Amino acid sequence: MTEISFAPRGSKAEIEEGERLSPKFDADGLLTAVTVDADDGTVLMVAHMNAQALALTIETGVAHYFSRSRGRLWKKGEESGHLQQLVELRVDCDQDAVVLRVRMPPLGPGVPGAACHTGHRSCFFRSVPLGAAPTPELTLAVNDDGPLFDPAKVYGLTKKTDTPRF
Amino acid sequence: MTEISFAPRGSKAEIEEGERLSPKFDADGLLTAVTVDADDGTVLMVAHMNAQALALTIETGVAHYFSRSRGRLWKKGEESGHLQQLVELRVDCDQDAVVLRVRMPPLGPGVPGAACHTGHRSCFFRSVPLGAAPTPELTLAVNDDGPLFDPAKVYGLTKKTDTPRF
Repeated sequence: MTEISFAPRGSKAEIEEGERLSPKFDADGLLTAVTVDADDGTVLMVAHMNAQALALTIETGVAHYFSRSRGRLWKKGEESGHLQQLVELRVDCDQDAVVLRVRMPPLGPGVPGAACHTGHRSCFFRSVPLGAAPTPELTLAVNDDGPLFDPAKVYGLTKKTDTPRF
Repeated sequence: MTEISFAPRGSKAEIEEGERLSPKFDADGLLTAVTVDADDGTVLMVAHMNAQALALTIETGVAHYFSRSRGRLWKKGEESGHLQQLVELRVDCDQDAVVLRVRMPPLGPGVPGAACHTGHRSCFFRSVPLGAAPTPELTLAVNDDGPLFDPAKVYGLTKKTDTPRF
């Protein structure tokens, strides 16, 4: 790909309400990427992008991230085949976060795609009980019907310590 | 409130698939919070929480964040009145991000609540065109019908330089 080139950061008004893309990367060169199902809005995962990942995502329409654990560009699905095709890419007011509205290939008839390396459709498959101060004994509730694929088979690993992380 | 107490970080399997809440705060003591409309799934905003903000959100069922620009706890709506009532709080596999499914008070008959300090319903009111490498001339598209409130009236400011930031 050619040199990565975004608009320079302008005034607060230009950044927040203008029509130029001038992303704000943090001290590590990253911004926050929230990936949601384009059809039902389910939040699938939260990850990060560096400038290269953002540019590749825009150019190809396929989600690319920066894996902090691996320290390198990460095309989602490069191992699992579970690519994310973008329907829309949104940027927030201060341009330090993006939302990817994506479609993923179904895992089978009536089985949606899954974004989490645990095999769950969404990384956010547990819910926190509300209404009381948290304690170490607080018990999370599972909010889905369980994993949709077997990570050991998809990633070809007997241990999960090397699976992709965010 | 009493002392903030979460479960200690355990093994990878315990963190990723167990039933304990053991959040992972970054070097600045923060995790990522994604706030979505509980009814239609629209991503409203991305912000951050420290341990106190997370604990208060869990205890009260009302969204609290940590404002990085102000360097302090931020009860969303403390100025604008636009509180966010939680329907559900979800945590991701590695427990460094949460999703808040919220309801906000409508701004009027048929006018939904708005989460962005610009007056837009969502901070993600602009979309990035896909299919070509980004350039400084890339033009963002507005994906909503415009602001739902006047920030100057709601925040009582003539300049917007002091409005809440994320």
